Amino acid sequence: MSGLILHEDSRSGNCYKIQLTAAHVGIDLERREYNIMKGETRTPEFLRDINANGRIPVLQDGDRFLTESNAICFYLANGTSLIPDGHFDQADMLRWMFWEQYSHEPNIATLRFWMRFVGLDALTEVQRMQIGGKRESGLAALDLMDRHLADRRWFAGDQFSLADICLFAYTHVADEANFDLEAYPELIRWLERVMLLPGHVEMGGQTPLALNAS
Amino acid sequence: MSGLILHEDSRSGNCYKIQLTAAHVGIDLERREYNIMKGETRTPEFLRDINANGRIPVLQDGDRFLTESNAICFYLANGTSLIPDGHFDQADMLRWMFWEQYSHEPNIATLRFWMRFVGLDALTEVQRMQIGGKRESGLAALDLMDRHLADRRWFAGDQFSLADICLFAYTHVADEANFDLEAYPELIRWLERVMLLPGHVEMGGQTPLALNAS
Repeated sequence: MSGLILHEDSRSGNCYKIQLTAAHVGIDLERREYNIMKGETRTPEFLRDINANGRIPVLQDGDRFLTESNAICFYLANGTSLIPDGHFDQADMLRWMFWEQYSHEPNIATLRFWMRFVGLDALTEVQRMQIGGKRESGLAALDLMDRHLADRRWFAGDQFSLADICLFAYTHVADEANFDLEAYPELIRWLERVMLLPGHVEMGGQTPLALNAS
Repeated sequence: MSGLILHEDSRSGNCYKIQLTAAHVGIDLERREYNIMKGETRTPEFLRDINANGRIPVLQDGDRFLTESNAICFYLANGTSLIPDGHFDQADMLRWMFWEQYSHEPNIATLRFWMRFVGLDALTEVQRMQIGGKRESGLAALDLMDRHLADRRWFAGDQFSLADICLFAYTHVADEANFDLEAYPELIRWLERVMLLPGHVEMGGQTPLALNAS
């Protein structure tokens, strides 16, 4: 695979998953940066040319565009050891990836976004009222992950897979949403295992100045 | 595949996706019914033996358990024509399945659940405050689907796939959440195409009396 373009905001964990997948399978991505806080993914041009849904990440492969971070990871990793061979293990890997999007990201990533980038004072009343529920669901998600890892090294099958990559992205910055990861010793050990793998890359990297969100 | 057990509440669209996938690929599932309104998936036995997350659907294959509806559909359909051959089309199918769980189900299915099964009077204040946002996001989801179908018959590639099955489940009952499907002519035609396919089965079926939720 070559000539792929990743349209991203490098502060987003959903974009980081794709960088991490690409790094592990040895694919070079051209990265184009958009600042979601400045509405750069809601311009008429972006909606027309990149994604009618107004969201990043988007992977561009020639004249074809792919959205949804976990689907993009699957595309990049298809046929590699990041996807287990057996049908059950493949489905179990997808199980964690769907779980991540339903039970982890809307709680942990959303709280991180609200606290670190939007700012509590700028939240709407409806958002503020959801903080308690999202905190509770985020804690339940981290607890479920910690218990799952009690007797295994990786999330699906017995190998490092896309399940680990997709869960790593927002878990390793959960402290930015005031989750105390020290309370989850198995999770801490798993985070360390992921970070020590050959090919690992850190989040962001491209535009560190953009981390100082306005 | 044989000897599979689906732990379900047959009123759930997430369970229906699995029945529909099984019907199309010709797999017989033993179905075990739980009433989520009566907490039957939160008992100590269910949490210990079936799913520590307390949710249905769960597919049991011998002593292995699989959760997340869309991952279960992938397991049942792996190697069949319900999953396209090409890597891009496979990823694009998964894109719609992830989108369904992130942008469709939490809005349309949740409003259906609140309105039809919980009842507006029984909602919490936090839930009530979310209705407007979920209504708006649900309308945006239906609109995106309708526009996507303007020049194609199926959601991913040029064939009926798991993307269609997973999106069909809650879209075809969106009227139960007071969404007016007549406003989306392409969606209506697509729903009819799905319903006319050989092998199609209707939602529920097993225990129609359970539809009268208390």
